Amino acid sequence: MEETFEPFHGIKNDLRGRLMCYKQDWSSGFNAGIRILAPTTYIFFASAIPVISFGEQLERNTDGVLTAVQTLASTALCGIIHSIIGGQPLLILGVAEPTVLMYTFMFNFVKDRADLGRNMFLAWTGWVCVWTAFLLFLLAILGACSIINRFTRLAGELFGLLIAMLFMQQAIKGLVDEFRIPKREDPRDVALMSSWRFANGMFALVLSFGLLLTALRSRKARSWRYGTGWLRGFIADYGVPLMVLVWTGVSYMPAGGVPRGIPRRLLSPNPWSPGAYQNWTVIKDMLNVPFLYILGAFIPATMIAVLYYFDHSVASQLAQQQEFNLRKPPSFHYDLLLLGFLTLLCGLIGIPPSNGVIPQSPMHTKSLATLKHQLLRNRLVATARQSMSQNSSLSQLYGSMQDAYRQMQTPLIYQGQSARGLKELKDSTVQLASSMGSMDAPVDDSVFDIDKEIDDLLPVEVKEQRLSNLLQAMMVAGCVAAMPLLKKIPTSVLWGYFAFMAIESLPGNQFWERILLLFTAPSRRYKVLEDYHATFVESVPFKAITAFTIFQTAYLLVCFGITWIPIAGVLFPLMIMLLVPVRQYILPKLFKGAHLTDLDAAEYEESPAITFNLPTEVDMGRGYSFSETREVLDEIVTRSRGEIKHMNSPKVTSSGGTPATDVRGLSSPRLSEKAYSPRVGELRPERSPRVGGRRAFSPRMGEIKPSKLGEGGLNSPMK
Amino acid sequence: MEETFEPFHGIKNDLRGRLMCYKQDWSSGFNAGIRILAPTTYIFFASAIPVISFGEQLERNTDGVLTAVQTLASTALCGIIHSIIGGQPLLILGVAEPTVLMYTFMFNFVKDRADLGRNMFLAWTGWVCVWTAFLLFLLAILGACSIINRFTRLAGELFGLLIAMLFMQQAIKGLVDEFRIPKREDPRDVALMSSWRFANGMFALVLSFGLLLTALRSRKARSWRYGTGWLRGFIADYGVPLMVLVWTGVSYMPAGGVPRGIPRRLLSPNPWSPGAYQNWTVIKDMLNVPFLYILGAFIPATMIAVLYYFDHSVASQLAQQQEFNLRKPPSFHYDLLLLGFLTLLCGLIGIPPSNGVIPQSPMHTKSLATLKHQLLRNRLVATARQSMSQNSSLSQLYGSMQDAYRQMQTPLIYQGQSARGLKELKDSTVQLASSMGSMDAPVDDSVFDIDKEIDDLLPVEVKEQRLSNLLQAMMVAGCVAAMPLLKKIPTSVLWGYFAFMAIESLPGNQFWERILLLFTAPSRRYKVLEDYHATFVESVPFKAITAFTIFQTAYLLVCFGITWIPIAGVLFPLMIMLLVPVRQYILPKLFKGAHLTDLDAAEYEESPAITFNLPTEVDMGRGYSFSETREVLDEIVTRSRGEIKHMNSPKVTSSGGTPATDVRGLSSPRLSEKAYSPRVGELRPERSPRVGGRRAFSPRMGEIKPSKLGEGGLNSPMK
Repeated sequence: MEETFEPFHGIKNDLRGRLMCYKQDWSSGFNAGIRILAPTTYIFFASAIPVISFGEQLERNTDGVLTAVQTLASTALCGIIHSIIGGQPLLILGVAEPTVLMYTFMFNFVKDRADLGRNMFLAWTGWVCVWTAFLLFLLAILGACSIINRFTRLAGELFGLLIAMLFMQQAIKGLVDEFRIPKREDPRDVALMSSWRFANGMFALVLSFGLLLTALRSRKARSWRYGTGWLRGFIADYGVPLMVLVWTGVSYMPAGGVPRGIPRRLLSPNPWSPGAYQNWTVIKDMLNVPFLYILGAFIPATMIAVLYYFDHSVASQLAQQQEFNLRKPPSFHYDLLLLGFLTLLCGLIGIPPSNGVIPQSPMHTKSLATLKHQLLRNRLVATARQSMSQNSSLSQLYGSMQDAYRQMQTPLIYQGQSARGLKELKDSTVQLASSMGSMDAPVDDSVFDIDKEIDDLLPVEVKEQRLSNLLQAMMVAGCVAAMPLLKKIPTSVLWGYFAFMAIESLPGNQFWERILLLFTAPSRRYKVLEDYHATFVESVPFKAITAFTIFQTAYLLVCFGITWIPIAGVLFPLMIMLLVPVRQYILPKLFKGAHLTDLDAAEYEESPAITFNLPTEVDMGRGYSFSETREVLDEIVTRSRGEIKHMNSPKVTSSGGTPATDVRGLSSPRLSEKAYSPRVGELRPERSPRVGGRRAFSPRMGEIKPSKLGEGGLNSPMK
Repeated sequence: MEETFEPFHGIKNDLRGRLMCYKQDWSSGFNAGIRILAPTTYIFFASAIPVISFGEQLERNTDGVLTAVQTLASTALCGIIHSIIGGQPLLILGVAEPTVLMYTFMFNFVKDRADLGRNMFLAWTGWVCVWTAFLLFLLAILGACSIINRFTRLAGELFGLLIAMLFMQQAIKGLVDEFRIPKREDPRDVALMSSWRFANGMFALVLSFGLLLTALRSRKARSWRYGTGWLRGFIADYGVPLMVLVWTGVSYMPAGGVPRGIPRRLLSPNPWSPGAYQNWTVIKDMLNVPFLYILGAFIPATMIAVLYYFDHSVASQLAQQQEFNLRKPPSFHYDLLLLGFLTLLCGLIGIPPSNGVIPQSPMHTKSLATLKHQLLRNRLVATARQSMSQNSSLSQLYGSMQDAYRQMQTPLIYQGQSARGLKELKDSTVQLASSMGSMDAPVDDSVFDIDKEIDDLLPVEVKEQRLSNLLQAMMVAGCVAAMPLLKKIPTSVLWGYFAFMAIESLPGNQFWERILLLFTAPSRRYKVLEDYHATFVESVPFKAITAFTIFQTAYLLVCFGITWIPIAGVLFPLMIMLLVPVRQYILPKLFKGAHLTDLDAAEYEESPAITFNLPTEVDMGRGYSFSETREVLDEIVTRSRGEIKHMNSPKVTSSGGTPATDVRGLSSPRLSEKAYSPRVGELRPERSPRVGGRRAFSPRMGEIKPSKLGEGGLNSPMK
């Protein structure tokens, strides 16, 4: 993405790009059929449960002015609007922890003022939202998001890990509190006797760890060995909500003799209880706010605007990471503009605003990648089965699979590019097959193991559409009505769920993988290479990896420490922003350029922005395509979750990629487009024999196929 | 083993065989050095913890006449004697659940008799032991164990699974009881209030599941990716005792406000408390037992004798399964004779007798296989490193590894055979190497990945010696003194440990694997082939496997049901004995002979005992050798525990094995000597293309090396 601050330029571009695929955004969602419910439910829980918990937190902190009803309402409202008219439909909106903290701070400021007080709190925050919206409009219009590509992987992943730490912290704190007497409760309650508190705490440990362990297990169900494929798929798709149900059921098991309130459950008013609606008419109070306070509202507004600008953009960025191999364009500026409107709306009806949330947004993309994978897979398996039943030869088999694959592709996106991408797919697979000398014999399942082969053929693709986002937001809206049911969930199950979210967000985060690498025994580091193609393990000296990772970890801990500072802690994103100059000016002095490129590629370092012209509509379709897939596919997204398989590049090699068609690499704001390319064959040919030798000796490392190094070296003159 | 009932014949044979390797039994143990402590500690815990728990059970059931002090004393005493003068040192002795049940039954009989009563209980059981010993002498002398080879895998594995179920049942029952008011306690105790009982139960859940999950994890530490090799090895070796310590520590964490008795801990008198010694002088009361009761003692004695005959022999058999590739001879008759003496001794000093226990005995062998594997591995790795530092060629490297390997072998056993076995090892590995065309170039770690290559080279071997058994028995003796420390272990940790033992005993049990196979999705059944070489999956139709497994499961459930019958339940082994005629006369009518052979080979079906002559001393050395390794090594022992790797036969192929030298196959009583041979190459050559084809397509299945099928077909004319 070019860095230009010409007013409205970014917004116009975003709108143009997204409008092109708007119709397809819907049709693609509906085409997925009933299966769309899997990612929808998954994200709905990931979105609703923290929002409910934040709502409870807000209720304690604001003396009941705001409750889970309001946080749910905001999440649902903003989610529905964003999913329909927002730019990037992968982005999930919700009331986030920083918002809760800011509102708590503002409530503490307001409640003791004689001229405002508890009753005028929402009116005043209405003004804060007005100012925030104004600032967000300015940022969006002036193209502030065009510098988002200065946030390298370093910043994005550090932020992701920080959020995971905060979620985990909340889980631990929640569990510890289960042993304590909660605020706002009658300490004479029998359930708060020391014996019952202890029992409650222990029960909470059982429930939360039960949920955490079973939920983590269930996500891997697809690779289980037992049960029918249907059952395994169902558990993998719906296991997490199912486990919330199961453990809520378990919480009701100890019936006799156990007092009500063991285990503790959600406390929240029903939306139809008196007073739960008073916020909606806050707009009529807004003019009663003293003028000085209207002006003063600008101060928290700047903080919130900075926060939202950062959070929203980074959430969007993390949902569109390069590994996901997205086809549709991003929409940073327009989404920020829309966020301004949403903030304004929320302020005027007296509910806390929502913004793009982490880790839910990247979780959303991951689950859609799984969905797309399954849809493609089912189609190809069916095609292959049919072909084999007709005694086709291997080349015919691949031919019919090509056809099926082509039919599954988005017509819009593929108009310019499809022919090439598919030809390569065919070439490489057929080449592989002919090397076995069995091209023309009829295929039976001894030669072609459908299940395994097709998994290897499929690239990582994401079902990019709007339906799952809309549906999950509507389900959140349903939660407001289902409050009496939600209140049956034990709080300890929530803490287990928080821990689950923290852990789920780790795989695929290279920073996290590097931390693990530091603890990996030297003799087993090659396994990291086996699992996901982490080029840096081979190309960067271990010392440099260590130094870089320790620096990043120290920085992370400082950020984490800052969140503990009472009020200023909300501004921890500023620390992350500080990483931009640190990365640009300080790190290059400490690390070699090549190493830094491998560990954390920055666009501005590699390719000065020569081709500033944005793609035209035709180019657009070509730009977001297979041109970078050779690199992309070497990345693993979520292999540890057993769903998306590691891709081998030779299968979809871009043999004809030239810088001229490489539009997306220069014009898109995604993190480090050219970063993690497996340069083995290109830059360091002297390393090939080593890898080759190891491969030949150890068939278990057979995933590094011989053709790979050769092709990389010969056919890839890009960059 | 021949079936002959000539008096003393079996005992003489056993003694002759074991005396030959008696000296080596000790020297080999001491040669292992400090590492012998790993299997020792592992088995010590597996032996002591159930014995303590059975002791507690006995204390409740016998009004405190017998306690954990006596069960520990018996286990230690019998263990020490057996490890020194017993036949098979892999066999672990201990007081087992059936003994506890029999003693409970006898106590209930005695306590209400006016002429016996509680005080004469031990004197009467002394007479029961005298009779039992007499019967055991008879059985041993008359060669009753020679029919032990009629117990096929079917019976042995069914019994193993039954014991696992009983252990798991005990774990669940124990956990449920943690929520209840225990017998023999003051129900007015504050710790027994309903709130504290609930808290205790929940705490027990946390502690037992904590122990179970962490212990299971720790056993797999060797394959972890993180931490140094030393740390991983330490955790794998000592993780289970460590976890008992850790969770006992955790049980002390909730200090403030929690009453004593939460969580519940072991209840047992200290051995120096008054009355704990009264049993030792029971012999002087024995003549006061009325004559009619002395005669009547014969009735329980027959039951115990039958029980011990079966338990002891099957425990010994399971500890010597074919997969373990043992080199030293078994000793069924002599061990049964010794068991008679031990029973007599225990009876006369008023402690319950010990017998061979499951699953501890096979666990012992497994842990010694791990030990041997490491010792071999370390030596070979060191040799290979040294060789490579001297710029050796690949052939030199293998040469020096051969030397090192030979030096590690037992001289006694290898006198006749070593040259051949090693030549093959060399041949096959060198062949493999030369096929890569790099035989004479200096080796660096790019061509020869030490860690991985050596794992592939090593066969499954067991460190057969007496030291670990002696040491663990002495540690059990130490427990008697350490009673005050043992009493700090929460009972819930014991229940977790029971569950751990049940689960640990499952891998390697083919019956269990077949049950799992029934639930395995058809498309994933090939994975069973990948993991451990289960020939039957390919050679037997799935329908037959299903029918056989369902029959076996139904039989298992009947046996399990019988254990619930109050008194007669102790005789459930009779049900297992009934399997011998069922297997011999009924099953062949229901299943095809070939299928039955693959699922459950019986010696009497395949090869009538032609060569009845036992090996001479020279033959002996040759018999227990590599002659069967080709088949044996295709079996996996404990791969799921990440310690012993799946072996590929071509590496140690017995190209010259002829029936004439195949002494062990005909003369040893081990389960189904020729049973689970991978006949792929021999009997079903038409299957090779299929396996080959799959291999070629999927490099991840590369463990099935091409040379395997070829060599198996050409060079193995045995049987």
